[in-house]
Amino acid sequence: MKIFNKVAIVGTGLIGGSLGLAIKSNKLASKVVGVSRHKKSLLEARKKGAINEGSITLNIIRGADLLILATPVNTIISLTPQISKMISKDCIVMDVGSSKEEIVSRLSRVFPNYVGAHPLAGSEKRGIAFANKELFKGSLCIVTPDNKTKKSALLKIKKLWSGVGAKTMETTPSTHDKIMAFVSHLPHAVSFALMNSVPEVFLRFAASGLKDTTRISASEPQLWADIFMSNYKNILTALGLLEGNLKQIKIAIKTRNRAALIKILEKSKTKREKLK
Amino acid sequence: MKIFNKVAIVGTGLIGGSLGLAIKSNKLASKVVGVSRHKKSLLEARKKGAINEGSITLNIIRGADLLILATPVNTIISLTPQISKMISKDCIVMDVGSSKEEIVSRLSRVFPNYVGAHPLAGSEKRGIAFANKELFKGSLCIVTPDNKTKKSALLKIKKLWSGVGAKTMETTPSTHDKIMAFVSHLPHAVSFALMNSVPEVFLRFAASGLKDTTRISASEPQLWADIFMSNYKNILTALGLLEGNLKQIKIAIKTRNRAALIKILEKSKTKREKLK
Repeated sequence: MKIFNKVAIVGTGLIGGSLGLAIKSNKLASKVVGVSRHKKSLLEARKKGAINEGSITLNIIRGADLLILATPVNTIISLTPQISKMISKDCIVMDVGSSKEEIVSRLSRVFPNYVGAHPLAGSEKRGIAFANKELFKGSLCIVTPDNKTKKSALLKIKKLWSGVGAKTMETTPSTHDKIMAFVSHLPHAVSFALMNSVPEVFLRFAASGLKDTTRISASEPQLWADIFMSNYKNILTALGLLEGNLKQIKIAIKTRNRAALIKILEKSKTKREKLK
Repeated sequence: MKIFNKVAIVGTGLIGGSLGLAIKSNKLASKVVGVSRHKKSLLEARKKGAINEGSITLNIIRGADLLILATPVNTIISLTPQISKMISKDCIVMDVGSSKEEIVSRLSRVFPNYVGAHPLAGSEKRGIAFANKELFKGSLCIVTPDNKTKKSALLKIKKLWSGVGAKTMETTPSTHDKIMAFVSHLPHAVSFALMNSVPEVFLRFAASGLKDTTRISASEPQLWADIFMSNYKNILTALGLLEGNLKQIKIAIKTRNRAALIKILEKSKTKREKLK
């Protein structure tokens, strides 16, 4: 079911590359082209079949009816003026960044057919090497229209995501960022802090508990620094709540209050068991 | 390779049941008997082949040459006077608890052939239903002799663990508890606090990051309250370090110091990549 004619993906990494693969294998577009700063990444993207053509310059995006921005937020912002001169006004533009309020307000001013999206898929691994066409299957993609978003563009973007196997949900950019601060950004912050707290000589005694809780602490530092910077208000709120919960545990331990501790632990067990 | 004649397991849950299965399938004893407060658990343990016989009273442990204490710490301590009257002085006694300093100092005074052990295996699941004979394969078991431990008993316990597929390491009970505070107890505390910080209405947006970091927050509240109580000094130290690391992240976010943030995140990435 063809939705687009020419799709251009700027940033052929894990998400961009997987989208290319999924779009091509589901025949959602006639042609997919890719842009990356790294020739090697483009070569691999072509070899894997994620793109039909690749280029290290933006020229290749000309004529696209869907432009996917899948680079880190800072790169998106710095490329915007150049990109806006190259694409037609009808071209739908979508980014796939992890925080939305800042980027949506910037891009919806520049691109008349802009739709923000955030696929809740991916991992601590990055790069085209880990891209796969099934990455979005059964996952959730949050789309974040604002009052400037065109219904027609939104509809096509939702079709795209269901075409690659994802369910979609709509929230405002601001609600999205509040939610993500808790379900994604806070777990990352906690995981980074936890990893940095464990003395290196003890690492060989680690069992699955530490491994699971710190898996995402191997995530890309630059990418996550940008996410933390861009969603800082919500993350600081979430960190404040976490500190309060840690303090409760600490006080219960310090005062030898077993009953209070059990109550805290029961609350988290009940909650966790709702997470399937 | 038979090491023991009659093995008695008090507490036929995940660890006790898995030990029974592994001992029997590796023919490390002629007979395995089990004690549990729950008839149902005993029935299932027998059905699975984890024990040859089971009883809800302690009488069945008489004549054992290895007694495995696999109940929560509090139960072990309350059963000790009764058990000590029922077994011979030659019987080797081993517990498998997650914190060691307190229990080792208590039990080594009562049982002349006591050896403390802590298999770094298991999961947030509990009970005989999840027991399996491969649970210890390729895992690490820390044995914690003190100055009262008999070499002969220690040797047999190490043989037992290698017989069920685990590597063994010796540390003092105090070193064990310091290590565990960081590699196991702190991750649990963090996971409980994190789970309790996420608003329930946001749970349906959770992706793998939150799921991984909170998997162990579904652990048994009573068991973990006891562990926190018994290793409280080391855990409070570990929590203090964690708070410091969280604060560093918070300050970097608050002061919009991207470079500092990247440094913190790089440190944790490098460390995590050493954890295989």
